[in-house]
Amino acid sequence: MPETKVKKEEDFHEWYNEIVELADLCDKRYPIKGMNVWKPHGWQIMQNIDSMIREEMFSTNHKEVYFPLLIPESFFKKEEEHIEGFSQEVFWVTHAGDNELEEKWLLRPTSETAMYPLFSLWIRSHSDLPLKIFQIVNTFRYETKQTRAFIRVREIHFFEAHTCHVDFEDAEKQIEEYKDTARRFFRKLCIPFIFNKRPDWDKFAGAYYTISIDTLMPSGRTLQLGSIHQYRDNFARPFNITYEDKDGTHKFCHQTTYGMSERILGAIVGIHGDNKGLILPPVISPIKVVIIPIIFKGREKEIIDRCREINEKLKKEGIESLVDEREDTPGSKFYDWELKGVPVRIEIGPKEIERGTVVIARRDTGERIEVREENLVDELNKTFNLMSETIYQRAKEFMESHIVRVKNIEEAKKYKGYIVELPWCGNKDCAIRMEEELDMKTLGEPLDRITVKDKCASCDKNGVTIVRLAKTY
Amino acid sequence: MPETKVKKEEDFHEWYNEIVELADLCDKRYPIKGMNVWKPHGWQIMQNIDSMIREEMFSTNHKEVYFPLLIPESFFKKEEEHIEGFSQEVFWVTHAGDNELEEKWLLRPTSETAMYPLFSLWIRSHSDLPLKIFQIVNTFRYETKQTRAFIRVREIHFFEAHTCHVDFEDAEKQIEEYKDTARRFFRKLCIPFIFNKRPDWDKFAGAYYTISIDTLMPSGRTLQLGSIHQYRDNFARPFNITYEDKDGTHKFCHQTTYGMSERILGAIVGIHGDNKGLILPPVISPIKVVIIPIIFKGREKEIIDRCREINEKLKKEGIESLVDEREDTPGSKFYDWELKGVPVRIEIGPKEIERGTVVIARRDTGERIEVREENLVDELNKTFNLMSETIYQRAKEFMESHIVRVKNIEEAKKYKGYIVELPWCGNKDCAIRMEEELDMKTLGEPLDRITVKDKCASCDKNGVTIVRLAKTY
Repeated sequence: MPETKVKKEEDFHEWYNEIVELADLCDKRYPIKGMNVWKPHGWQIMQNIDSMIREEMFSTNHKEVYFPLLIPESFFKKEEEHIEGFSQEVFWVTHAGDNELEEKWLLRPTSETAMYPLFSLWIRSHSDLPLKIFQIVNTFRYETKQTRAFIRVREIHFFEAHTCHVDFEDAEKQIEEYKDTARRFFRKLCIPFIFNKRPDWDKFAGAYYTISIDTLMPSGRTLQLGSIHQYRDNFARPFNITYEDKDGTHKFCHQTTYGMSERILGAIVGIHGDNKGLILPPVISPIKVVIIPIIFKGREKEIIDRCREINEKLKKEGIESLVDEREDTPGSKFYDWELKGVPVRIEIGPKEIERGTVVIARRDTGERIEVREENLVDELNKTFNLMSETIYQRAKEFMESHIVRVKNIEEAKKYKGYIVELPWCGNKDCAIRMEEELDMKTLGEPLDRITVKDKCASCDKNGVTIVRLAKTY
Repeated sequence: MPETKVKKEEDFHEWYNEIVELADLCDKRYPIKGMNVWKPHGWQIMQNIDSMIREEMFSTNHKEVYFPLLIPESFFKKEEEHIEGFSQEVFWVTHAGDNELEEKWLLRPTSETAMYPLFSLWIRSHSDLPLKIFQIVNTFRYETKQTRAFIRVREIHFFEAHTCHVDFEDAEKQIEEYKDTARRFFRKLCIPFIFNKRPDWDKFAGAYYTISIDTLMPSGRTLQLGSIHQYRDNFARPFNITYEDKDGTHKFCHQTTYGMSERILGAIVGIHGDNKGLILPPVISPIKVVIIPIIFKGREKEIIDRCREINEKLKKEGIESLVDEREDTPGSKFYDWELKGVPVRIEIGPKEIERGTVVIARRDTGERIEVREENLVDELNKTFNLMSETIYQRAKEFMESHIVRVKNIEEAKKYKGYIVELPWCGNKDCAIRMEEELDMKTLGEPLDRITVKDKCASCDKNGVTIVRLAKTY
């Protein structure tokens, strides 16, 4: 079977680029850096991921909305930390036709400042709370670093949920719900991750605290897949989002957000793929089963008919499938569908027809088994489950075996490509010194603060907790 | 039953604005003119419309893609007529952070100039043709006229299909396919329309010819719902979209496009709605059946349980339904769901429980009938079909009775709020004179050119065809 020119284990980033192109996920030849063209296969996978997000959101009583892309400068400037964090990263619309606009508008990098003026109109009383909405949209950030398909782009396919609550405690409950949502969602995608409470100096601009959802890519760098923010009333005050409580007093809302992006697809490509191409978790594969006729001369019609019959049967059972009837060798068809990551291939030739069987081949292990037609649907569903479990466990073992707790910076230096956990006094300067000496970035603390007795890895004070660092995207 | 403050028959535009707000379709208080916030009900209806578009596109072998929002000025300027047509209508991004961009980028008003440079890379040989793709995206036009929800906005929810062909004839076949698609699609939405071949001076900028899909709103103005364009090789030449033919020669592709927008929703609101609110064609209603418990004291639990039971039954049959269990009077619940346009209401009280029946009420006619539980699903499906047929026929009769063929301008003046058909010599000046005298716009000619013997309504020459004019949005 042909393999990629570049091997995943030899040069992960080159392999990643090759796969993204060969599997027809996106075209990077669009003339604006970091703005790529989503091709049909990539877009369909992303839409399936979006459907899973919608399902999670609807089942937790969120409503879907769509806010305008453009935000007036005056809105954007209402929350001080927010503008400080984002002002270097935004694109500005200044003209329409030949006219200069009276006020500049920016392309949303995220939608707090577009939404919250409206929230202040929508929310009147405690009975309007909690307000829980989300949207799936294009957002924009002026990245100056090297861009990378799905991982660092300038037009970002983005999901953002926003909630408003009567008080801090209710907002905290929402954070717990989002943590559960993230656990369910990434489990279905077979992606392991860890939560990190980002340090104060690296939290979302305007947030009270930020929880990041980080996974480890095979390159040894972590990839932030999403984040959950507690805003307290930091935005409610400047945007005047208040409600009348039962006792008639007016109070500020407390808010949270949960965001994710097309990086989810980047993680699926990078973590599950191999030197034959993508490996898609069955739950998001646009096609779950491809049926390849193994043609023998003189029996073409019989074999094709049999393939179509099986195809109809699978469709009826709700299993997305297709027969590859192109005039090409079975081998080159195998290659094509392996590249695209289709979970299961079915092969049907004269032998199988005579025996009333088909051969099914699993994309992740390459394993081929012959199954009787009457058992096919059960066998396929079992295979999808097994495959999901296998690729999840493989990814989880990789991540977990690359998290290491050490006592000091010297020891940490031995663990290139790892997430290292070091004792820490909680001081920013100490974390920055670790970052510099290790050439890594601070991921933050575990959510359940771990108390340690060792000395801080950077200063002489006693460590009070641990801090995680890693190379990051 | 409460009705809208403004009556549809008295002031259509005020009624339209009231409905859009009360039915929770969009919020127009966003601070940029013509950029509205899609609220949950409006967005869900639009998404259902999008799903129908996708279904049509996939069934005719189109693939879905997503191209970047931003287009470099140099790309935009490649086709002369195109830039002339659009240059006064585009928004320009000129800065990123504090930096001025080296080249200005515009927000797509439509995606020809974003897509076609890539098409020229994708297409190599005749075997790559036809290329058939579509996308559903946000587009932007700097409207200076009065804006109106869904009908004239500056951020437009937009559908665009683009195809490339070996020659003009194959592109013409595509146009026929799109005409069929439009017929099927709008029939499902119960929206009648006429095709008009736009006059040369009003075709899409860069097109060889443009077919518009026009409907008549109750205001007596026509609304353009979409358009189908034949580009010939007008774009292929400047964008160098060529292929190698079987004989080894290199030829330019011929192209077509088909575009529609959120105006579809505007037409549904305006054409089907009444003074109680929206009337949604069942095919796009997010909820098809709402179940209202008619509570009698002491029997609350029994009644609610019965409603839930019916609800589960409907869901199992694939009929989207919900039980309105809010603490409110049945009357005010009726009012709410009528506003939102839900096709069928089910009422269940003690009497119905005793008889093993439920009452179903149709949104369009208000008709209420009692049906036995065992017949409910059949009865509902019958009602959905009847309702679709009824609202379509009503709309069709209105439109057809407001198209009138006249002999001259004086006669045409009698028909305010009509689409008038006048004999025409084919000369632009004559059409413009008709526009001015009638205070109407030229819609164009019927697709099947009608030969007439009458004199042109504007000059003394013999008319050769008819031209349609109307007040337009």
